[in-house]
Amino acid sequence: MTEHRVRFQPNNVDANVPSGALLSEAAALAGVDLNQPCGGQGRCGRCAVRVLDGEVRRRSTVRLSAEDVAEGWALACQTTVLGDVTVEVPPQEQVERHLTTDRTATPVEVPEGYDPAEDLTIRAVNLTLTPPDMSDQTDDWSRVQVALARAGIDEPQAPLDFLRKLGPTLREGDWEAHIIYETDTWDCQPCHARLIDIRPGHQADDRLWGVAIDIGTTTVTVFLVELVSGAVVAQVADYNGQIRRGEDVISRIIYASKDGGASEMQALVIETINTLIDMACKRAQVSPDDVVKATIAGNSTMMHLLLALPSASIRLSPFITGVNHMPTIAAKEIGLAMNPLATVDCLPNVASYVGADITAGVRSSGMDETDDLTLFIDVGTNGEMVLGTREWFLACAASAGPAFEGAGVQHGMRATRGAIEEVWINSATYEPSIRVIGNVRPAGLCGSALLGLLAEMFMTGLMDKGGNIDLTLPTERVREGEHGPEYVIAWADETSIGRDIVITHVDIDNLLRAKAAIYAGFTVLATSVGVDLADVQRVLIAGNFGKYINVEKAIQIGLLPDMPWDRFAFLGNTAVRGAYLALLKREERERIKEIANKMTYLELSADNSFYEAFTSALFLPHTDLSLFPGVAAELSQARA
Amino acid sequence: MTEHRVRFQPNNVDANVPSGALLSEAAALAGVDLNQPCGGQGRCGRCAVRVLDGEVRRRSTVRLSAEDVAEGWALACQTTVLGDVTVEVPPQEQVERHLTTDRTATPVEVPEGYDPAEDLTIRAVNLTLTPPDMSDQTDDWSRVQVALARAGIDEPQAPLDFLRKLGPTLREGDWEAHIIYETDTWDCQPCHARLIDIRPGHQADDRLWGVAIDIGTTTVTVFLVELVSGAVVAQVADYNGQIRRGEDVISRIIYASKDGGASEMQALVIETINTLIDMACKRAQVSPDDVVKATIAGNSTMMHLLLALPSASIRLSPFITGVNHMPTIAAKEIGLAMNPLATVDCLPNVASYVGADITAGVRSSGMDETDDLTLFIDVGTNGEMVLGTREWFLACAASAGPAFEGAGVQHGMRATRGAIEEVWINSATYEPSIRVIGNVRPAGLCGSALLGLLAEMFMTGLMDKGGNIDLTLPTERVREGEHGPEYVIAWADETSIGRDIVITHVDIDNLLRAKAAIYAGFTVLATSVGVDLADVQRVLIAGNFGKYINVEKAIQIGLLPDMPWDRFAFLGNTAVRGAYLALLKREERERIKEIANKMTYLELSADNSFYEAFTSALFLPHTDLSLFPGVAAELSQARA
Repeated sequence: MTEHRVRFQPNNVDANVPSGALLSEAAALAGVDLNQPCGGQGRCGRCAVRVLDGEVRRRSTVRLSAEDVAEGWALACQTTVLGDVTVEVPPQEQVERHLTTDRTATPVEVPEGYDPAEDLTIRAVNLTLTPPDMSDQTDDWSRVQVALARAGIDEPQAPLDFLRKLGPTLREGDWEAHIIYETDTWDCQPCHARLIDIRPGHQADDRLWGVAIDIGTTTVTVFLVELVSGAVVAQVADYNGQIRRGEDVISRIIYASKDGGASEMQALVIETINTLIDMACKRAQVSPDDVVKATIAGNSTMMHLLLALPSASIRLSPFITGVNHMPTIAAKEIGLAMNPLATVDCLPNVASYVGADITAGVRSSGMDETDDLTLFIDVGTNGEMVLGTREWFLACAASAGPAFEGAGVQHGMRATRGAIEEVWINSATYEPSIRVIGNVRPAGLCGSALLGLLAEMFMTGLMDKGGNIDLTLPTERVREGEHGPEYVIAWADETSIGRDIVITHVDIDNLLRAKAAIYAGFTVLATSVGVDLADVQRVLIAGNFGKYINVEKAIQIGLLPDMPWDRFAFLGNTAVRGAYLALLKREERERIKEIANKMTYLELSADNSFYEAFTSALFLPHTDLSLFPGVAAELSQARA
Repeated sequence: MTEHRVRFQPNNVDANVPSGALLSEAAALAGVDLNQPCGGQGRCGRCAVRVLDGEVRRRSTVRLSAEDVAEGWALACQTTVLGDVTVEVPPQEQVERHLTTDRTATPVEVPEGYDPAEDLTIRAVNLTLTPPDMSDQTDDWSRVQVALARAGIDEPQAPLDFLRKLGPTLREGDWEAHIIYETDTWDCQPCHARLIDIRPGHQADDRLWGVAIDIGTTTVTVFLVELVSGAVVAQVADYNGQIRRGEDVISRIIYASKDGGASEMQALVIETINTLIDMACKRAQVSPDDVVKATIAGNSTMMHLLLALPSASIRLSPFITGVNHMPTIAAKEIGLAMNPLATVDCLPNVASYVGADITAGVRSSGMDETDDLTLFIDVGTNGEMVLGTREWFLACAASAGPAFEGAGVQHGMRATRGAIEEVWINSATYEPSIRVIGNVRPAGLCGSALLGLLAEMFMTGLMDKGGNIDLTLPTERVREGEHGPEYVIAWADETSIGRDIVITHVDIDNLLRAKAAIYAGFTVLATSVGVDLADVQRVLIAGNFGKYINVEKAIQIGLLPDMPWDRFAFLGNTAVRGAYLALLKREERERIKEIANKMTYLELSADNSFYEAFTSALFLPHTDLSLFPGVAAELSQARA
């Protein structure tokens, strides 16, 4: 059998394998450590390597674009060796970066019954003009206006940049032209069509793209959408460039309030968005100039920073936003790298801590179309939540703090490589089993692990309902630490940090306060409208955190209300999906606006009942165990 | 009697004069040459000097502003010496520059019955808002919108820059604010109010200024207007900075059509306008930020270059403008140094060579309000002319060429210091008498002198009706020169250029072609509508050239039709006055738009009858002397 030499760069180590062996097998032989969190099934994409030289066969290219493959990328677990080859094992960060763009990608369905002729406000029209001559010296713009009026487009608004292209383009196209316009814009109804671009000659009218954007405090997501078919042709995401000026909205507002800070914050997020648009356009082979509309969602602070609107009042009592309903602008006004006259619709905010991400999210969740009493929650640094039906929406934001994002917790970290993402505790031995992102030695605990840990420690009796660790238990893993009682999840020699990874009493206190704030938010929403939380028929969980949450454990610690699991649904990034709907359909923009107008905001910091509810929720799962009958039953079973 | 020493700088010469003597007398004693074209009557302002030190008394400060006087400026012919003084005699250019701003200034009357409450679209409103608190967390913008709606201002348009000022200004003014807005804008009717500025606290509502601008190919004129009273508080003018890239529209279009040329041309004229706005604001002690509206007139090329619109098609057959009706823009869009959100209305063009200067000029001339058959003419490089009544307007542009502006003529020059501006010829001796701008040795001939020369030479028999100089006459002043027959106006030793100043046969040919083009324009306009030129009841002459034209001589050469002098009126800069009307009154903007829409443009280069009329007009005064009965009578008298 033919053998081939496989060389791994940059370490320059070789392995000899039979023809047809997998690159991942060669790597194992050569002692090269590749990530395979999915177990080599070609699903996660984390074992991506670059084939620099030699013949291979890719069985699967899931998570790789045609462009990636052209650049030599291959999944080690799905690629067989057909000759001597040299492959490069990139640093994991590079793989992650490379994959960021797909990690959160989920198929997006075009809205049912989508009819661009009816729904879409972006249009294109081909004009055939009579050329001017000595007997008809009508100016170019009047000539075009007459032709547009014949096509049913009356008194269009022409920005200067459009008029500057007009004459040369008409002549280049020999008096045939293709004009892209928007039939109406959102903040100006009824109003005249807004002209976006003119091209020489006639063109097909389906070469129109748009972007739906969600600006998260941490992650910015962009969908590139083929407007006429409605298809999402690329989904990309990256960290918000503003992170380097503050992890949370408060520190960003403080930074933006300094001299020049607002412009810098705007520039940082625009740079992120532009990089993503460029990435998406390259992937779908679309010219950024053909991207002619954008809709944008984000929390209120992100929306203000995007437009360089003052944000200081968001942070200071009585917590006021500058602008909830932002005007439609042209892309060039904020420097977006797409068609400069593309219209940009910012979706509406409701209050300082209930922003366009929530109004867009509620719309895309469909809770505005049902009579069911629905609870919509988006847990991040703040837990934003909306209770309602199609008739009404009551919203609040519970300042949970960043504990569940790993901040304010001794060994907390973001959900990246090396983070413990799941913990199980043996109820007999109190020994933990962990799962680490990237299958490497652990460096800390991310949010889902913290949540799970709380539940496991409580359910196994490692701590009581007050969050107190039982130091009397027969295990070395509980001990008195520097910051009081603590539980050891990983011993120093098992970690990549050379120290024991623990959860301390202080950490637990922080986590309890976070979960209590969120649950208290639910409680206040429910009592405000005179319903029981148990009456809620649907709990819709939005956001990335929701994707990793374990409902059972979240109920066990009293973060989520105790109800049948089938009432819960995880929706992922509802904000970008709402922006996507708004991009395609005029009606969706109107509906999101309606949602914003209908939504009543409850300021929890001004609400005495909140503190009461918060205090009651500081226990596991709750002071009032009757609210958690399922958990009560489990507990009595577990401790029987 | 007390004597005082008067020292003149920069030459450092002294004169001793009795107390109470004029500075001009002291200058004469000291041998310092001061310009006094008005003969020391304190009217022309050209003897302006700066008193650096010592006591003087100004009898009159005509042509000097309070600011000028504060800087020490004084008219030498109107200022007496009360002690030892030192004065600076500035270079004449500096005086001219200094005076430019007033030289063309003529009192402007506020339109009769002007009622800002009714006419003016710029408004200001004081708002008193309920401050937000925990029970009312309405966003700033909605709060302001509600207050505006209560004040009758519904759904206003707020540009981003306005929204950026909103929050901090509301707080600075402790929830009282002063908002400046425009009730409607011209290109968008009906439409929502457009917000321009917000200031903290309450303010008087009459602190609103605007600028009316005329962009001439040669000269840019700016009126600074106090909008509520309607008063013109400063009139300033300067050469159009584009001159350095071409003297006429054609060369500017060619330059603008090069790479980067359009932006450069725009920047040059904007720089001129900004300097003028700054000058006017300083004089009137107005902050440029308080200048909140502009209206702009100019010929079609100037209007296109201002907005950096492509202009190439204006120059090339079939001579098409890009945009006749330009959109209302914000000052910042083109970098005007006034309130960045000030609305800028560009008045409408009609055709490539009949621009906003003509539509505005026709309106300010009042020809759109009379049943009299009126001929409106604006002679510059092109002779633009409009024939009509209140019911109709027929316009054309005769490409006269720049001969009457002194270009294409051997000793032609602009009407500046050293230019001969008037010539009389003794019919017996053929000796000329001349008047020179600045009372200095002559350097050349400006337009009015050329026109006068043509008339004098013809009427005295120095040349025949074909423009041929009679070399047989008994005077040394006619001779065969390098370029054929010529007439000497000034001998070399009388000039500042050390050469004879002459007018040649070639010059005369050029001038004849120029006057023939203009007269042929009149003829074609009249025949097109089936009237005789003699039926014209009013001839309205606009533009600076008109100010210096001598009607008698213009008729003698056949530039103007032969009719009683009282039918002629000289209106000066009608374009800036039209812009001024449009600045104050919404109705005037509508009327100028109507004029533009009603105006029919006759393309002379496509009109065979024009060539016929042109050829007939190449004679002095005309082939058909019966069209000039007055001149015929004079001629038979003169040569009897």
